[in-house]
Amino acid sequence: MIIIGELINASRPTIKTAIETRNTAAIERIAQQQAACGADYIDVNAGVFVDDEPDHLRWLVQTVQGATDKPCALDSPNPAALAAALTVHHGAPLINSISLESERYRALLPLVSAGDCRVIALCMSDEGMPETTDDRLRVTDRLITRLSAKNLPPEAIFVDPLVQPISMNKTYGNAFLDAIEQIMKRFPGVHTVCGLSNISYGLPRRGLLNRSFMAMAIAKGLDSAIVNPLDRTMMATIVAAETCAGRDDFCMNYLKSYRAGSLDER
Amino acid sequence: MIIIGELINASRPTIKTAIETRNTAAIERIAQQQAACGADYIDVNAGVFVDDEPDHLRWLVQTVQGATDKPCALDSPNPAALAAALTVHHGAPLINSISLESERYRALLPLVSAGDCRVIALCMSDEGMPETTDDRLRVTDRLITRLSAKNLPPEAIFVDPLVQPISMNKTYGNAFLDAIEQIMKRFPGVHTVCGLSNISYGLPRRGLLNRSFMAMAIAKGLDSAIVNPLDRTMMATIVAAETCAGRDDFCMNYLKSYRAGSLDER
Repeated sequence: MIIIGELINASRPTIKTAIETRNTAAIERIAQQQAACGADYIDVNAGVFVDDEPDHLRWLVQTVQGATDKPCALDSPNPAALAAALTVHHGAPLINSISLESERYRALLPLVSAGDCRVIALCMSDEGMPETTDDRLRVTDRLITRLSAKNLPPEAIFVDPLVQPISMNKTYGNAFLDAIEQIMKRFPGVHTVCGLSNISYGLPRRGLLNRSFMAMAIAKGLDSAIVNPLDRTMMATIVAAETCAGRDDFCMNYLKSYRAGSLDER
Repeated sequence: MIIIGELINASRPTIKTAIETRNTAAIERIAQQQAACGADYIDVNAGVFVDDEPDHLRWLVQTVQGATDKPCALDSPNPAALAAALTVHHGAPLINSISLESERYRALLPLVSAGDCRVIALCMSDEGMPETTDDRLRVTDRLITRLSAKNLPPEAIFVDPLVQPISMNKTYGNAFLDAIEQIMKRFPGVHTVCGLSNISYGLPRRGLLNRSFMAMAIAKGLDSAIVNPLDRTMMATIVAAETCAGRDDFCMNYLKSYRAGSLDER
């Protein structure tokens, strides 16, 4: 599982303050904690700062990469902010995210296809949010065709079929899960990704729903996720589900996690 | 989800003693607890008593059905024990289980096809345990064809594709999960069932693996399980996974469970 650590997001008040005050130590600490808990990418988001987003995103990338050896997920639809972040990023970043919305697509395509980038491809188009599995597959097909034409290899594309709350419509879980399964079958090499906590929006005991849905998505082939790597019970579920899904030779990762105390109930 | 409560099994020392001493109150209590926690069937197993199994199984059925309004899952491959239990069982029992093993099949078929019975059809044949998804589908196809010819409706057949430990072979999880998906697609109306704790055999933190695997199996269509209904975290996972899988109109069962305190972390 490719883990994208979601905690450095300026919509969280402590992160917003850390950015405003250029609190390097605070950002370094949370970057290092996420890396230690298994993050493969450190997401950085400064979206609440409209005018200063480019400056702030660049600073976040420098701070995170000064403290860890991880690449960043550059979490912005703003081409200026992405361009600023890309000037200082080392290694291959994950751009989060392009979509089929015309304006966003046109603005981001040059950045995505310029260098050695990976990109999250959101199943969103000018028609809005997808409803059904077929909606998602149609948008995915067009996005992959276009990105491939710009020489992005399948391995660089992370399709996010978008999770919608199960409290709004009982079909929304399966619409997403079946999209994961179909995308992984139809587009070999492509990754699927999501920030799946949206599934539990409006309901109590969200962690329980999120963990269950994560295991279900892994059963369908999900191989990347935007999560809080410090959420021990979620991370334990991911380790267990990946073992059950045949992604853990000789259960070595499961046993390693067990010995490290990561699977303990609390 | 059709829940088969597994606790009244003579391989557990307290149950064995309760059977030997005809401790009606003890069996009644555990039957009632399981019913209160959501069991649809109460499994009864007296398999450790070779000669006395028919007597004991009959007494278990009478005791359980004297204390609850639930049907029993008659857990035995012994035709004499099943016949004795059937003489006293009220309503439609679930016979646990027939298989494609010649001797077992021939001995149990008359009992299964005589009255209003449901039956667990184990994916086991004279060739032994299945390895792959295809092995499971071959046995399933033959079992369903034969049972249908004896006028069992699809709804009366619960196919158990058999879970093998993930510690023995990393493909065993997917072999099972994919069999669930295929069986539910190919044989409309048929149920799938399992006692899935075998997945975690030989590994630590078995509950974590079992819960994750349960959510994964529900994502693939599993609609019945042999579990301990008193295992609160497992039951909470089932409620959550079923909600995510679109089986819970307006999240009513999830919210009801929440209000009853059944989803609380402990």
